Amino acid sequence: MKIALAQLNYHIGNFDHNSKKIINAIKEAEQENIDLIIFSELSICGYCPLDLLEQKSFIKNCLKTLDHIKTFTQNIGVILGLPTINEKEKGKNLFNSAAFIYQGTVKKIFNKTLLPTYDIFDEYRYFEPNNIFELLEFKNKKIAVTICEDLWDDQKVYGNFDKEALYKNAPLEHLSKLNPDFVINISASPYSYNQAKDREEIIVKNAIKYSFPIIYVNQTGANTDLIFDGGSFVVDKKGNKILGCRYFEEDVRHIDLNNQDTYYKNIPEIPDKIEGIYNALVLGIKDYFAKSGLKNAVIGLSGGIDSAVTLAIIIEALGNENVTTLLMPTKYSSQHSIDDSIEMANRCNVNYHILNIEKLRIEFDKTLHDIFINTKPNVTEENIQARIRGNILMAYSNKFGNIVLNTSNKSELAVGYSTLYGDMNGALSVLGDVYKTDVYKLANYINKTKGNIIPENIIIKEPSAELRPDQKDNDSLPDYDVLDSVLFAYIEQKLSTEEIKYKGINTEIVDHILRLVNFSEYKRSQAPPTLRVSSKAFGSGRKMPIVAKFN
Amino acid sequence: MKIALAQLNYHIGNFDHNSKKIINAIKEAEQENIDLIIFSELSICGYCPLDLLEQKSFIKNCLKTLDHIKTFTQNIGVILGLPTINEKEKGKNLFNSAAFIYQGTVKKIFNKTLLPTYDIFDEYRYFEPNNIFELLEFKNKKIAVTICEDLWDDQKVYGNFDKEALYKNAPLEHLSKLNPDFVINISASPYSYNQAKDREEIIVKNAIKYSFPIIYVNQTGANTDLIFDGGSFVVDKKGNKILGCRYFEEDVRHIDLNNQDTYYKNIPEIPDKIEGIYNALVLGIKDYFAKSGLKNAVIGLSGGIDSAVTLAIIIEALGNENVTTLLMPTKYSSQHSIDDSIEMANRCNVNYHILNIEKLRIEFDKTLHDIFINTKPNVTEENIQARIRGNILMAYSNKFGNIVLNTSNKSELAVGYSTLYGDMNGALSVLGDVYKTDVYKLANYINKTKGNIIPENIIIKEPSAELRPDQKDNDSLPDYDVLDSVLFAYIEQKLSTEEIKYKGINTEIVDHILRLVNFSEYKRSQAPPTLRVSSKAFGSGRKMPIVAKFN
Repeated sequence: MKIALAQLNYHIGNFDHNSKKIINAIKEAEQENIDLIIFSELSICGYCPLDLLEQKSFIKNCLKTLDHIKTFTQNIGVILGLPTINEKEKGKNLFNSAAFIYQGTVKKIFNKTLLPTYDIFDEYRYFEPNNIFELLEFKNKKIAVTICEDLWDDQKVYGNFDKEALYKNAPLEHLSKLNPDFVINISASPYSYNQAKDREEIIVKNAIKYSFPIIYVNQTGANTDLIFDGGSFVVDKKGNKILGCRYFEEDVRHIDLNNQDTYYKNIPEIPDKIEGIYNALVLGIKDYFAKSGLKNAVIGLSGGIDSAVTLAIIIEALGNENVTTLLMPTKYSSQHSIDDSIEMANRCNVNYHILNIEKLRIEFDKTLHDIFINTKPNVTEENIQARIRGNILMAYSNKFGNIVLNTSNKSELAVGYSTLYGDMNGALSVLGDVYKTDVYKLANYINKTKGNIIPENIIIKEPSAELRPDQKDNDSLPDYDVLDSVLFAYIEQKLSTEEIKYKGINTEIVDHILRLVNFSEYKRSQAPPTLRVSSKAFGSGRKMPIVAKFN
Repeated sequence: MKIALAQLNYHIGNFDHNSKKIINAIKEAEQENIDLIIFSELSICGYCPLDLLEQKSFIKNCLKTLDHIKTFTQNIGVILGLPTINEKEKGKNLFNSAAFIYQGTVKKIFNKTLLPTYDIFDEYRYFEPNNIFELLEFKNKKIAVTICEDLWDDQKVYGNFDKEALYKNAPLEHLSKLNPDFVINISASPYSYNQAKDREEIIVKNAIKYSFPIIYVNQTGANTDLIFDGGSFVVDKKGNKILGCRYFEEDVRHIDLNNQDTYYKNIPEIPDKIEGIYNALVLGIKDYFAKSGLKNAVIGLSGGIDSAVTLAIIIEALGNENVTTLLMPTKYSSQHSIDDSIEMANRCNVNYHILNIEKLRIEFDKTLHDIFINTKPNVTEENIQARIRGNILMAYSNKFGNIVLNTSNKSELAVGYSTLYGDMNGALSVLGDVYKTDVYKLANYINKTKGNIIPENIIIKEPSAELRPDQKDNDSLPDYDVLDSVLFAYIEQKLSTEEIKYKGINTEIVDHILRLVNFSEYKRSQAPPTLRVSSKAFGSGRKMPIVAKFN
């Protein structure tokens, strides 16, 4: 049986766009004499449509699109993903389904059993879990059709409660009793650098445990904060990877399961951490713009590492001709910051404007003079500068249609060292899930692989917000390697204060950092959506109360 | 058996505060010879702690607090709510539990069966559902102990899919077979004006159906956006309400189930819609400040109805001495706006400052002159003004510690007629879940019940943002009664474009409004948390994709 893995990039709610892609792939596969072509989870509507799933018209459009696509299946079997209606009287409205279509008819619907409800996933909000286990019979093969999480039954439980597994049910246990020839899994599995290998390991483990080949079809592309890295693959029953699709791009590959030996080659490798983050962020920006019908971006260039790395990533995603940078110095800005920014803009060949905001800064001082009389300058005046810059960036955006991208990194978002409505502005945060120490690694990666576009001086200078004379980041924060290791332990690993202290980090520093993190929830609740590259990004996957006492 | 309903106000994660409250109520009840005192859902930790539930130290603190409280139960039975650990090898880490404590010992734990996963609820993220049904036996009574949603088994399903009920399981059906003498339900049921009566109806229906009394104990108080209205009550087995606690405040009431007839009096009535919204918003602000250790607020006064109503509500919550208002006119501001604002501030006896921002407006024009050359003034210049005001409000806040409260209403948030990083600023949105037509009703309610504090002129003038000459809201929007009816149909009722059109509203207007709503998701994703008073507020209960094609 000849099978095609169609790893495509879908747009949420854009049924025309998605169905054209699917139909094109079907037609091409037909010409290649493919028996069965497989698309990924919720491919008809994109993942995840969230509360659009509560709108009846949205579901109708999904089903109408299925009806249209099925007319192209006279000579080829198709498996694709969509929500279907749960016809029972009680329960959730929908199933998260895989439809098998052939000869113009929907022959069978398979529903997802394990519905993830952790981190960014919230599928139980919409879907009823499946409890019927059947195989697909097609061209003398018996096939187990599963959906994403269905193979993750021994998913680890978050939060250190010594639990063995999150799920009580293992779909493959049921399905294996029916003796399938192989397993198909259609997925919408987003990228995170600390889980990039887990996915393969879990599939391989299952193939070996039950002794059947598994065909895993993921999607690629980004939907706002979520980035899908593709990397679809096939493992044989011994757990050998015998076919692999590329990462972070569309890729359709074929396999003949009767003739597996020919496929052990040209298998793309999983990108390492920094390369993976870079590719994910580029794709994230590219799709944010393309899927929103947008073209141009604007960012502020400060002379620091964050805006430099952000710029390098944006020009890769959008092209240098579509990016504008603004330099907005005050009297606190050093000459090297201005020079470095100009050098950076020139090396990237992007448009830059210098708008001196010193007069605006002074005018705010004057306007506030009477009510600020007898007070001393403090963080207030620093924030005013950041908000003047935020206002100018947004004004540029409003006037010319360039979208403001945010340049804050994860470390400063974590401890709240950023100004709400100032440098926290932007439609999308590029580095908001990248710790400062990794921002430096990204800078080196970029210079190594894309030409030396980030001036050395930007990489080696001491970080400073330059909002008051002689300010340095480490005046009030520990060094970034210490800071980031505490943040990682608290945010990604969910360790408690005590557990982090046992790691040998100074007690006062740990307390200080965690206090800052907890205190900044109110700021982060208004932060831009953040491109997610880790297993725990700020945003919809980390739900913290704002008014609470943290212990 | 003498029973106390303890309707208290809890603070998330503040174990000291919560346990002191609980212990005080236990001691007082003991003095009144109460047999059993009942606290509400998750009373030990507050509702809802969200991802704090994933931190092991948080759960340990819950259990430690339970250990402390149990030492006060030598002579009185206590039922309270907390998360407990699911000891099974597989499944979610926790249960959402009710503990029965007596004579210094935890005698029995009951776990929640029905876990809500719609709107603002996401309990399946943390909790394993119960499937064991047992009664509590105490002082010769057999008692069914349930938790909130457990009585809502015929919960309607959102989204018009002709489904009969969301849940397949009815805990009371299992429990009724064990012949309980009465049912206890501990709740964390937030207020919404369009569901205020549903709660009572559902409890009454259950009492009649199974023919036993039900004791319903809700909490009061607000945690960020969620406002709990209390209104705990007891119905007899015929469904008659025989005891009721007050709304929007703490209230502990007693009942002797052997002598029910004496209680048919002093039952507080459910507040009507506008009174309910008013009380909810006052409580929401009060608790946001008190639980965050804050005292003072600042808002911008524009001369319009929204900031006037917001001010009236804030001074009720915080006291006029703790509120400052800023008037920030430009050349586009009418004299009546300034006069009306001063009049409003004077009637409320709050501090006001006039900061003319015309020079700042001009200075921004100058700073942007070179890059804006050959462009025409448009919404850009309007947004700059709004963002100057936002910057000044935040500067005042940073300098003096007054918290900026947001004055936008739900109608303008819905259609995006507000400036991100400008008038959308604020730690908390007061009116963000109140449609403009209801803002007017609130104004009239306030003037009728609190003295004429809102000048008539503010109520009768035509709404205008005053960001350009002669601007009026209805230049670009339909009248608010039409707008609000379309918004309600789309947001609360989740009707499709077609269904709304059938209601007789002009097709083009419906299309225009829904396009605006969908297009503004990116703005709302960065809006402040919004005090929730409806069944569908913007915020965590309405999860919409940003990059998507809406149909």
